[in-house]
Amino acid sequence: MTKDILDRFAAIVGAKNALRSADDAAPYLVEPRGLYHDKTPMVLKPGSVEEVSQILRLATETGTAIVPQAGNTGHVGGQVPLQGTQNQIILSVSRLNKIRAVDPTGNTMTVEAGCVLEDVHKAASEVQRMFPLSLGSQGSCEIGGNLSTNAGGTAVLAYGNTRQLCLGLEAVLPTGEIWNGLRRLKKDNTGYDLRDLFIGAEGTLGVITAAVLKLFPVPEGHQVAIAGLDSPETALKVLKLAERHCGGALTGFELMPRIGVEFTVAHIPGNRDPLTGKYPWYVLIDISSGQSQDAADAMMQAVLEDALSGGLIGDAVIAQSDTQRAEFWRLRETMSESQKHEGASIKHDVSVPVAEIPHFMARADAAVRAAMPDARLFAFGHMGDGNIHYNISQPEGADPEAYLARRFEINALVYDIALELGGSISAEHGIGQMKRDRLAAIREPIEIDLMRRIKAAFDPAGIMNPGKVVALPD
Amino acid sequence: MTKDILDRFAAIVGAKNALRSADDAAPYLVEPRGLYHDKTPMVLKPGSVEEVSQILRLATETGTAIVPQAGNTGHVGGQVPLQGTQNQIILSVSRLNKIRAVDPTGNTMTVEAGCVLEDVHKAASEVQRMFPLSLGSQGSCEIGGNLSTNAGGTAVLAYGNTRQLCLGLEAVLPTGEIWNGLRRLKKDNTGYDLRDLFIGAEGTLGVITAAVLKLFPVPEGHQVAIAGLDSPETALKVLKLAERHCGGALTGFELMPRIGVEFTVAHIPGNRDPLTGKYPWYVLIDISSGQSQDAADAMMQAVLEDALSGGLIGDAVIAQSDTQRAEFWRLRETMSESQKHEGASIKHDVSVPVAEIPHFMARADAAVRAAMPDARLFAFGHMGDGNIHYNISQPEGADPEAYLARRFEINALVYDIALELGGSISAEHGIGQMKRDRLAAIREPIEIDLMRRIKAAFDPAGIMNPGKVVALPD
Repeated sequence: MTKDILDRFAAIVGAKNALRSADDAAPYLVEPRGLYHDKTPMVLKPGSVEEVSQILRLATETGTAIVPQAGNTGHVGGQVPLQGTQNQIILSVSRLNKIRAVDPTGNTMTVEAGCVLEDVHKAASEVQRMFPLSLGSQGSCEIGGNLSTNAGGTAVLAYGNTRQLCLGLEAVLPTGEIWNGLRRLKKDNTGYDLRDLFIGAEGTLGVITAAVLKLFPVPEGHQVAIAGLDSPETALKVLKLAERHCGGALTGFELMPRIGVEFTVAHIPGNRDPLTGKYPWYVLIDISSGQSQDAADAMMQAVLEDALSGGLIGDAVIAQSDTQRAEFWRLRETMSESQKHEGASIKHDVSVPVAEIPHFMARADAAVRAAMPDARLFAFGHMGDGNIHYNISQPEGADPEAYLARRFEINALVYDIALELGGSISAEHGIGQMKRDRLAAIREPIEIDLMRRIKAAFDPAGIMNPGKVVALPD
Repeated sequence: MTKDILDRFAAIVGAKNALRSADDAAPYLVEPRGLYHDKTPMVLKPGSVEEVSQILRLATETGTAIVPQAGNTGHVGGQVPLQGTQNQIILSVSRLNKIRAVDPTGNTMTVEAGCVLEDVHKAASEVQRMFPLSLGSQGSCEIGGNLSTNAGGTAVLAYGNTRQLCLGLEAVLPTGEIWNGLRRLKKDNTGYDLRDLFIGAEGTLGVITAAVLKLFPVPEGHQVAIAGLDSPETALKVLKLAERHCGGALTGFELMPRIGVEFTVAHIPGNRDPLTGKYPWYVLIDISSGQSQDAADAMMQAVLEDALSGGLIGDAVIAQSDTQRAEFWRLRETMSESQKHEGASIKHDVSVPVAEIPHFMARADAAVRAAMPDARLFAFGHMGDGNIHYNISQPEGADPEAYLARRFEINALVYDIALELGGSISAEHGIGQMKRDRLAAIREPIEIDLMRRIKAAFDPAGIMNPGKVVALPD
């Protein structure tokens, strides 16, 4: 890329928002899993939608690849340059971080793509509302990234993915044209669903610059419990029992293995073993009531009593305060982090139909044990959504690099089982650069072909995040 | 169209499923509002997905226009041939009416496009589950049409539109290729959202042949009440109060005018004036509890007590039985039908942000009164979703044709006000042939352009329901 072209890009945002040195660019290149290590000629930080538009217009004119980035917390390399390239410019939306409007009567909020998720939570809570999207990375992830990856998280069971939490979008096309789809409507059947096409497209069709989010009333009551039990099969029974008792009031149902509790208690200061005995598996049950704390407590009591009297759970503890509710969730949310202290991990973000979780776990465990007898199975996740983070920690004392060298072999085993059960190879993290070729290999040609036709219709020049999700048609 | 081509189409489905006479085709051509009167050379009734595929392949080969049709209950002429054409073949999916699978543990059901909505309800209820989509036409509308129009109805407030109730799709492309996207997953972030593109595309991108629907637990408790009040503004206050008390347990909130109650009591046998006094406006409040009938009753009591003591409502009645709950809903659901007994109607299916409903009503009423002082305002609808069926009955004794002749002038008044308030010209009925040109006129060119590019990417030959939603690129 010539200096002249870079200067033209820099002129759009001003020199101090066009980062050219390796040091300045480093925070935008290092991603959470440390798997991708590429260079970029420049990081652009536009301060307005108009600047985003100018950048993309110039990119189309000059054939420059643009990698949109929000909070840089993605797990599949979607937000960093494609491995092996050195000529992709990063467009950070972080400076577009205004909350443009809050409408508590209509239960909507209009935010820019660079708003940090936690700031969105705060702005909602200032008007006694809630934005339910909840992720481990919420202190740094930004809403544009949440939208572009259709982020999941711990509140999907009751509130859906990010796609279900968005009413309208503003996006800039590769040509620089601005699409104003910032509608605040719950019902609007006027043509093709452009909104849901941009959501989850991982920045390959355009740059999301703002969105209208749905707000919800803050529940009057909230309760969390952890129960110990013997198997994923029993956990499924407890889930069905909790659904019967709670209906839409069941706002979380997470599965955790004993090893997960042990790692997180050992490595994350402040975490405690939740029950006096040890159980092979644990479930975290989260219940919200629109009525009262008493109602939430009563539901939790009923679920646990039925589960105890039915012999499904061995023991359970109900949180006694907001602090304890947060502690229980922290146990679950630090599980992934705790793995880092035990060496390398091979990870899978898979989903299967909820009823298939026990089969999936049994088959995946058997396959992985046969391949790697000493590896430590560490599956946990959003059981209520059928979404398991099927992680595997390296054998104690093993060489991390030798262990990781086998990851593609193990991936294939686990993905094949998920697919045979009607599952997905990416429940919530997306495709990015990590799973693009795998996606193309497992899907019927017509599906990949349709995606490529959409890509060509939106981005014929192929400047938007090239190499991610799907390739342009040949 | 030559006899030879028609014979080739007929050979795919067999003579008795290829209707050629005007009499046989009539039920497929007459649509509910009686606005479109076209001919068709043939109605095809395929009995399998493979036959649908063969039909579309032949249509592409011969350049034959295909109009997909399910229950033929649409309000915007999407499911009947384009006005003025005589060469569009209707493809009825009604014979594809198998329920392929029911999974109560995973809360999913796989159904074919021709399943009548009421039969889907019954199949869900046989496994103690609920499919919440609920429409006045549920005895005859079919799920393929519900999906193709992203149908709304009375349960959107808590459960969302049809789009939110669908996990996976099977669809046939114009080329005859079959896309198997029948996934049963709650979370699956693997590429562009093809599902939500087919949903709401009104048969212009392909033919939906089957779908995986979400099921829900049947609520343990259900209560319905009707309250009388003075204005849409007050109704909005009652809505917010009900949301505060109920959260996600508020499963319906409908607005009805006095004239609506009068029409439906006068013309629909069995309907009764719900309250002893007369009120300018009424709201129907529907509450569901996952816990118990007592809990639903208690919530309803609390809402109505607060509304009464706050001076928001003048009187209210709570249903005393399932029969009465059904009666209350029937009052609301027969409102549109009751209008037919009072002459011609000019209708609008608009939505605005919920908080704007009072402004919309005040402004639209003033505009229509100024234009047609004697017309009878008859606005009712899904207030909780911001969706008002802003209907206007003709003046008593006026000439229906002269009245209807002014409908485009009145449409423009009402739509302009909805649009100024950030609203939609079609909240739940879609675009079809009725609103295609209007949509093109009101949306920014980039949005129409993107839709046309998608149309071209999926249906370059333009055989799928041509003339509906958007035109192909020039």
